[in-house]
Amino acid sequence: MLDQIIEPTLLLDEKICRNNIKRMAQKAQANNLVLRPHFKTHQSLEVGRWFKDYGIDRITTSSIRMAAYFAPEWNDITVAFPVNIREMRRINELASKIQLNLVIENETGIQTLSSNLQHPVNVFIKADTGYHRTGINPERIDLLNSLLDQIEASPKLHFKGFLGHAGHSYGARGKDQIASIHQSSIANMQQFSAPFQERFPDLILSYGDTPTCSTMPNFEGMHEIRPGNFVFYDVTQVHIGSCQVQDIAVAMACPVVAKHPDRNEIILYGGGVHLSKDRYPQPDGSNYYGLVVQLTEEGWSGPLPDTFVKSLSQEHGVLKVTPALMEATQIGDLLGVLPIHSCMTADLMKRYHTFENKWIDMMHYV
Amino acid sequence: MLDQIIEPTLLLDEKICRNNIKRMAQKAQANNLVLRPHFKTHQSLEVGRWFKDYGIDRITTSSIRMAAYFAPEWNDITVAFPVNIREMRRINELASKIQLNLVIENETGIQTLSSNLQHPVNVFIKADTGYHRTGINPERIDLLNSLLDQIEASPKLHFKGFLGHAGHSYGARGKDQIASIHQSSIANMQQFSAPFQERFPDLILSYGDTPTCSTMPNFEGMHEIRPGNFVFYDVTQVHIGSCQVQDIAVAMACPVVAKHPDRNEIILYGGGVHLSKDRYPQPDGSNYYGLVVQLTEEGWSGPLPDTFVKSLSQEHGVLKVTPALMEATQIGDLLGVLPIHSCMTADLMKRYHTFENKWIDMMHYV
Repeated sequence: MLDQIIEPTLLLDEKICRNNIKRMAQKAQANNLVLRPHFKTHQSLEVGRWFKDYGIDRITTSSIRMAAYFAPEWNDITVAFPVNIREMRRINELASKIQLNLVIENETGIQTLSSNLQHPVNVFIKADTGYHRTGINPERIDLLNSLLDQIEASPKLHFKGFLGHAGHSYGARGKDQIASIHQSSIANMQQFSAPFQERFPDLILSYGDTPTCSTMPNFEGMHEIRPGNFVFYDVTQVHIGSCQVQDIAVAMACPVVAKHPDRNEIILYGGGVHLSKDRYPQPDGSNYYGLVVQLTEEGWSGPLPDTFVKSLSQEHGVLKVTPALMEATQIGDLLGVLPIHSCMTADLMKRYHTFENKWIDMMHYV
Repeated sequence: MLDQIIEPTLLLDEKICRNNIKRMAQKAQANNLVLRPHFKTHQSLEVGRWFKDYGIDRITTSSIRMAAYFAPEWNDITVAFPVNIREMRRINELASKIQLNLVIENETGIQTLSSNLQHPVNVFIKADTGYHRTGINPERIDLLNSLLDQIEASPKLHFKGFLGHAGHSYGARGKDQIASIHQSSIANMQQFSAPFQERFPDLILSYGDTPTCSTMPNFEGMHEIRPGNFVFYDVTQVHIGSCQVQDIAVAMACPVVAKHPDRNEIILYGGGVHLSKDRYPQPDGSNYYGLVVQLTEEGWSGPLPDTFVKSLSQEHGVLKVTPALMEATQIGDLLGVLPIHSCMTADLMKRYHTFENKWIDMMHYV
C-alpha cells in the first residue's frame, strides 16, 4: 500500500477509529446519555456510517453547509453554531428535509427565524458554561425569559433546551484540571434548567467536548453529549490527557525530500497546507507542529524519541531528528506525522487513505 | 454584491491585485531581471492570466501537482521544491508537455531523475542563502562539483543554475533588517556562480522573496526573481515593511453571528478553516489572527482602530472591538478580515469573489 503514496496523504487507521467510536458510544450508553457526535472532525459520510453500528441516529455539525452534506443519511442534525441569519434560504431548504436543530443566543436570531421560517425547527439556547466564546450566562434569568417568550410566540420554533460547550477544557492538562472545568461547567449547565424545568419539563441539556467526554466518570443532569475530535484524537488531546498516543487514528504520510545531517534536520514534503499551522507551544516559547512515526503496511509505530516537526512552511515540514533516524532514513522514504489538531488537518486534506488501500472522501467546500 | 455573501467568502480586489503585479513587473524590468512569479499564493489560472499583460511567460510553483494545473497555459515552469522522487510518473508526464525546471540538492535526486526521466528537464541546484531550510552551503565546492559532474553525465538533465530563497527575510521588521538579510543572501548567491562561471557560462542565479523584491533597490548579479505573496500581500507583509496596508488585495467577508458587549467581543462566522491558524505574535506573548475592516460595494476601509481577531476556532472568529464598533454592528452584518498570511487563507478557500461580482476558481487538491 505505502508504495502507492507519492505525496502528502492522510492515513486513517480504521481499526483505531472504530475503537474510538465504540468506546465513546459505550460510555454514553453506560451513563444513560444520548451521544450526538460532532461530525466537524471527520466531515465524511463514510466515517459517519461507522457510528451507525452503535445505534447513533443523530449528529452535530458546525455549519448549515455541513448539515446539508450529511442530510441524505442523517435525519436529525444540530448545527452547534449561533444561527447565521444570512443563510435563511439554506435553513429553509434543510428544514424541509430533516429535523433541524439550531442554536440561538440573541433576539435578532429568534426574530429572523420567526419571520422567515417555512418549516418548523427546534432551537437550543446557547449556554455559556464558562468558556466565554458564545452563549448566555445562566444568571441572566430576565434575558433568558424574554428569549423563551419570543421562541414560544413563534409557531415554527420549538424550544428544545440549553446547549453548552466547555471549550476551556482544551486548556486543561491532566485529569484533575479537566475535572475542575467539568464540575464547574456541569454546575453551570444545571443552573440553566432549574428555573425553567416547570415551564419546559422536557428541556434537555446538551453538553460535551472531547476532553471531558473522554475522561470524566459522570455527567449528572446532562441528557446528551456532543464530542467530535475523539473520532481521531491528536497530539493535543494526548497532552490534555484525553487519550493515549496509540488512540490517534490519523497520520500524515510525507515523502522525505532532503536530509541535513549537519543540523540533524530532515525535510518532508508536507507543510502548512497539509497539516495546518496548529502548533503545540513548548515551555521555552518555541512550538512544534507534529510528532513523527514510522509507517508500516499495517499502521504506524509510537512517536520516535527526540524527533518532532520543528517548523512548517506552505509545503515543507522541517523535522528535528536523532542521528540514528538520520542514518536510517533515505531520500524518497515516507515518514508519518501525528497531527497537533486532527480537525484542521482533516479539513485541509479532504480525503483519507486507509490501510485497506481505500480512499474515503469528505465534503468539499466549493 | 455584498447582499449575496451569506458565508465566509474571500473577496479579491482585482484593481489592487493588478497594481501589485504591475509594480513588481516594472521593477523587474527596470532591474533587468526576469520575473518568474511564484503562483503558490493565488493558485488560479485566471489570476495567472493577469500577469500576461506584462509579458510574463514563465512561472514558479511549489509542487508538481500545481505545475500540472498551470501547464495548459504556461510553457515554462520551475517547481521550487526539492524534487520528490516518488512522483517520477507525474514528472515524466509533465516534462513531455512543457519546459520543466526542477530543483535538486542531493545525489539521490539526481540519480533517480537520471535513471527514470523520459524527457529532458532543466535542473537548478538549491542554494542555501542563509535561511537553512534546504539547499547547499556555497563553501561546499567539492559537493557542488560532484553534483554538477553527475548532472552533466546525465543526458536528460540540463544544468540551469542556482536557486535560492531568502526565507529568513520574513523575520525582518523594516527596511534596514530586510536590507541586511538581502545583502548577505545576494553575496551568498554570487559566491555560487564564481567557481562555476567558466564551466557554465550561461548559469543563472534565481532568487527572491516578497520582502526583498518589494523593497530592495538592486539585485546585483541575479538573473531572475521569484516572489509570490506580493500578488495579494497580507498583514504579515505590512509588519515586515514589504507593503502598505492598502496594498492588501484580499479580505475575508464574515457574517456577524453574536455580540457580547460586556466583554467587547463580536463573534464572526469565519474561523481557522477559512483564515488558517497563521497568527501575528504580540510582544506580550499573545497573538492576533487578522485585522478588521468595513466592507463596501467597491472595496474595504482601512483597518478599524483597536479592533482585531483575538482567537479562532474551527468556524468561529472572536473579535476584540471598540464600544463604537459594537454599537454600529448588527447581527447579520458582514465584517471584513485582512488575513495574517494570504497564501494559507487562499489555499483554504479555493476560490475568490471579486467586486465585479464574479467567482474566480483555484486549483483543487483532490
